[in-house]
Amino acid sequence: MELNTAIAELEARGQAAKAASRRLAYISTEVKNKALHNIAQDLLAQKDQIIAANQVDYRQAQAAGLTAAMLDRLMLNASRLEGIASDVLAVEALPDPVGEVFDMRTLPNGLVIGKKRVPLGVIGSIYEARPNVTIDISVLCLKSGNAVMLRGGSETINSNTALVKVIQEAIARAGMPQGAVQFVDSTARELVEHMLRMRTIDLIVPRGGAGLIKFVADNACMPVVTGGIGVCHTYVDKRADIAKSVAIVYNAKVQRPTVCNALDAILVHVDIAPTFLPAVAAELGKAGVELHCDRRALSILGPNPSLKLKPAVEEDWGKEFLALIAAVKVVDSIDEALAHIEKYGSGHSESIVTEDYTSGMRFLNEVDAACVYINASTRFTDGGQFGLGAEVGISTQKFHARGPMGLKEMTSYKWIIFGSGHVRPG
Amino acid sequence: MELNTAIAELEARGQAAKAASRRLAYISTEVKNKALHNIAQDLLAQKDQIIAANQVDYRQAQAAGLTAAMLDRLMLNASRLEGIASDVLAVEALPDPVGEVFDMRTLPNGLVIGKKRVPLGVIGSIYEARPNVTIDISVLCLKSGNAVMLRGGSETINSNTALVKVIQEAIARAGMPQGAVQFVDSTARELVEHMLRMRTIDLIVPRGGAGLIKFVADNACMPVVTGGIGVCHTYVDKRADIAKSVAIVYNAKVQRPTVCNALDAILVHVDIAPTFLPAVAAELGKAGVELHCDRRALSILGPNPSLKLKPAVEEDWGKEFLALIAAVKVVDSIDEALAHIEKYGSGHSESIVTEDYTSGMRFLNEVDAACVYINASTRFTDGGQFGLGAEVGISTQKFHARGPMGLKEMTSYKWIIFGSGHVRPG
Repeated sequence: MELNTAIAELEARGQAAKAASRRLAYISTEVKNKALHNIAQDLLAQKDQIIAANQVDYRQAQAAGLTAAMLDRLMLNASRLEGIASDVLAVEALPDPVGEVFDMRTLPNGLVIGKKRVPLGVIGSIYEARPNVTIDISVLCLKSGNAVMLRGGSETINSNTALVKVIQEAIARAGMPQGAVQFVDSTARELVEHMLRMRTIDLIVPRGGAGLIKFVADNACMPVVTGGIGVCHTYVDKRADIAKSVAIVYNAKVQRPTVCNALDAILVHVDIAPTFLPAVAAELGKAGVELHCDRRALSILGPNPSLKLKPAVEEDWGKEFLALIAAVKVVDSIDEALAHIEKYGSGHSESIVTEDYTSGMRFLNEVDAACVYINASTRFTDGGQFGLGAEVGISTQKFHARGPMGLKEMTSYKWIIFGSGHVRPG
Repeated sequence: MELNTAIAELEARGQAAKAASRRLAYISTEVKNKALHNIAQDLLAQKDQIIAANQVDYRQAQAAGLTAAMLDRLMLNASRLEGIASDVLAVEALPDPVGEVFDMRTLPNGLVIGKKRVPLGVIGSIYEARPNVTIDISVLCLKSGNAVMLRGGSETINSNTALVKVIQEAIARAGMPQGAVQFVDSTARELVEHMLRMRTIDLIVPRGGAGLIKFVADNACMPVVTGGIGVCHTYVDKRADIAKSVAIVYNAKVQRPTVCNALDAILVHVDIAPTFLPAVAAELGKAGVELHCDRRALSILGPNPSLKLKPAVEEDWGKEFLALIAAVKVVDSIDEALAHIEKYGSGHSESIVTEDYTSGMRFLNEVDAACVYINASTRFTDGGQFGLGAEVGISTQKFHARGPMGLKEMTSYKWIIFGSGHVRPG
């Protein structure tokens, strides 16, 4: 397809999504739930066609030499489709945030004024070769009353085409407006750049690696849900409980090291370091964690052939490892820990382990991050764990929403004002 | 000053503001209020120096041939400074939004989780030749715990320099961090473009005409409070009360025609047009309002030598008149009114006048605007009128805040999580 034609088509899709979003804004919860229910059913009913389309992508990706990890993320089979369908039903069961009326009050002049929750409008999503995102993001947007415009990775074009067909037919049958789910079926790179400048898109949600997220954040004209990058510290304070500290640090690092809320650096107060570090290192060592230690940590822990120890270099601070590696630094005070986090943290999740009231409160007040913990693992930063039911992403910016973004965070509000002939005096 | 030097200085100011904002985030309300109190006092104590600096700007602007309206907006005198100082004291008296803890709850696993209100960080403000904005925006930012970076119009560089000196000395005396108020003292146009790409600025608030706002919105890499442009409709429904309709339309158009929440277009149902239009036109005519009428409205009202009537042209729909002019259109149904508003409205303030329950509710639900009114004048869209105390601007976007933005809308939150050794299972 000619690029100009593809761009014109993209613009038309934006207009169609915007038009649909106007209707979606006040469609009933019943219709939205019916649409989600249909999607879950159809995913199962049409699993053979979906898997066949996915097989085409898979074989091409294999031939193109994609890594085993990428091929695994790309692959759909019956059990994965069953899992996706069950996630759709879980979103169907969540409460609908749209339509909530709040902050309602009567002004002295008798005007009755408040706010009503409304969808944001059109959500653009740009993502890599993971076909499950096609369903995931569509379902979260539809439940929160938003139209969606999807641009998936070119490696999954056949899978996405099949999945979008399922979604579009399923929602139409429920009575949702045409155009609520738009799919960009051209894989030209220029279309991504064009999408990032489209006035019909109200918010962009990138899903993928750090490179994609940075590209979108740097180039989008509309708000972006940035996040997904977490350089997370756990600070073990002078008066920390050793058993709690070891358990929390171990969990934060080992339970799932490849995700954004996993621990990257351990900061430990100098007074407790001689007791804490050997205890935690023994546990981390059993899990195969490599420790990049500053001079003082290294002199406490090493040499020790049963541990993977390395001297830390400057690049270790502020690095998201996404692996069984942790940086370790001994600090002289909570002030030094706070300054380190301020300098190297990414504003995602930070934790202090302490039995000291004042240290805990200082950490809570002074650390500037989406999620600040006392005596708990940073691994809890998650929409499901926080009770939001589902999660569109984790925001590390301060505007609009911070931390896990659930359905409510995909909405805005309008002021509603009830008068009885009110005019402004003066 | 060399442009490169000016840009390096701008970057340094951004860093200084960011550093100050970290401290401002948890400074006490007492210190913030003391700072505002000092500013109000010093504005009065140093009024002679401020007025002398303003006179330099005034004479240069006069020589440069600025219009009388622009000169008037630029001018400071003793009574205006007294007014500004009294506005500062009004903000001092408002409640501090920062530190509020909300949505606190205990999860089934015993984690205690909630949100704490925090400032946004560093607010950049780019504005035109109105020195009062220097004080206004600084005071609103400081009270909400934000640092501020000011770039005023080059025509008021001397006034702004004098005012910023007052602010900086006043806040330092109260114990606020150095660097909380930064002033860009170079008037090079390139600095505005550079500011719009600075990672140290968390939010940009443009203040000025539509050209400035559009330029900032199109070029900023960070969130922007867009707004200040209102194409506002009042729809007089089939079952409207004529007396209320006339009073509401008259107020919305005439009470202060030069502001963004003033009426731009009257839509009237065909069944009530023959009664309503002559009644409202008679009142509007007395105030000198010019009516740009569609064919049917014109045939009802004209010819009439005591009215200023013109046939409407396409450009009249969707135009913000900011003057004693209103477009008038007769519609066949509420559907036609809703479609017209969807097509031509700017998402600011829209009103319906009706005694019909279903029409009122449909309008409220279906109109997508920051403020939607039933039986009231759109002139109420204002932070003061809505009970927010003060107003940073009126947002016509849906992200973060919509409608009048007060102190609370200049904040974000962080999640705070209290554990007792919690780790994530699985």
